[in-house]
Amino acid sequence: MRKLVLCEKRLPSRSKYDAIQGRFCQRDAGHTGRCDEFPYLADLARTHPAVATKIVRDATMTTGAAWKSDEAGPNRILRWVMLLSDQQLAQFGINMGGLKPQVVAKLREKAAPYADCMASAKMLTWQAYQMADAPEPSEATRAYLERDFGPMIKDSALCLICKAPISFNLFALAQRGKAELETGHSSPRQHNPENIGFAHRVCNIAQGARTLDEFYDWMETVLARVRAQGRHAQTE
Amino acid sequence: MRKLVLCEKRLPSRSKYDAIQGRFCQRDAGHTGRCDEFPYLADLARTHPAVATKIVRDATMTTGAAWKSDEAGPNRILRWVMLLSDQQLAQFGINMGGLKPQVVAKLREKAAPYADCMASAKMLTWQAYQMADAPEPSEATRAYLERDFGPMIKDSALCLICKAPISFNLFALAQRGKAELETGHSSPRQHNPENIGFAHRVCNIAQGARTLDEFYDWMETVLARVRAQGRHAQTE
Repeated sequence: MRKLVLCEKRLPSRSKYDAIQGRFCQRDAGHTGRCDEFPYLADLARTHPAVATKIVRDATMTTGAAWKSDEAGPNRILRWVMLLSDQQLAQFGINMGGLKPQVVAKLREKAAPYADCMASAKMLTWQAYQMADAPEPSEATRAYLERDFGPMIKDSALCLICKAPISFNLFALAQRGKAELETGHSSPRQHNPENIGFAHRVCNIAQGARTLDEFYDWMETVLARVRAQGRHAQTE
Repeated sequence: MRKLVLCEKRLPSRSKYDAIQGRFCQRDAGHTGRCDEFPYLADLARTHPAVATKIVRDATMTTGAAWKSDEAGPNRILRWVMLLSDQQLAQFGINMGGLKPQVVAKLREKAAPYADCMASAKMLTWQAYQMADAPEPSEATRAYLERDFGPMIKDSALCLICKAPISFNLFALAQRGKAELETGHSSPRQHNPENIGFAHRVCNIAQGARTLDEFYDWMETVLARVRAQGRHAQTE
């Protein structure tokens, strides 16, 4: 991983949560012009703004559910805010004790440090550019991302889960109002570049709360039982 | 399947929907005492009322989502009511045109004729009694169910999807407020005894909108790709 090459100047405060976790410029040290937290997303922000927004959101925010009520808690929240204790959160007006246990669990398991979220956004961008039908990155963007994760090879991106090639065009598709591509996790509670990648929504749902290893092992076991019992068996 | 052995007297009307689809006694023809739509559930209704209620609900009602608003539509509704046209439904105060397309799709794909729902409730009860740790049915209940579906063999019930043995005790378990056992469908839009069975919630979610055959084929394909690419590959 890159060492000491980033500007890392603290960005002007925009949110009340900046008091507990600052946000920092991710441009190269010694850059000219303005500081920027997501410089490698500038190209996509111009040509495919919804994709750039999605990468930032998936990397930095907890997932949302149908939670937009006081009782159900915040819909989405910054992942690093979910590292705070209930007591600290109360100071920000978030009453975790008032939420249903399943909502608390869902929010807490999405917690991740700021640095991991920044690295995750870079990894997702690096992967997006390797999808079939992806736009070409500028030379600056390519150099920035390849320094961290290695050469970007067009048409080589696979769904994290089913390993089928994925097309950049899937970003624009949605079924029943839900995006076709989601950010998946090899290990659901670990949000960092080693554990994340784009995945089909259907695959991500099928994996559920399991690690990828557990999921593949489960599939092997199920298929063995199906071979023994028959596909439509309901009793032994 | 059984022929002409049921009472099938029309039951007193309890719902406005009885005007379009009556409900009928499922006891044997010539029975003494009161008519009953679910006579074979009498034992469970006494010892495990939540299980009896679940079987009736899963067999006869559409699934609910977080839909309890005017805009989102009814939470659960009788499956055979969803066979009506939009125009017919409007007469019952249900405005399908006002619902989101994905809600309409979800409701419509759960539609099933009354007779199939009755047969499905019987099949689910027959399966429940074959689970490990299930209570013993009365002789009358056993005879009634076995006449339709064959001998009930204790400890032989399998999850429709993963084919692992399932315990009756799973009915009482819930994680994050969701029941551990659901009613699964080999073919999601076909709600009849040939296509339904109890399944783990996790398995049912993993199957999603696919048929069981499609799901198993998908698993075979994924595992073949995983063997070729490696479990943690993100690019080819």
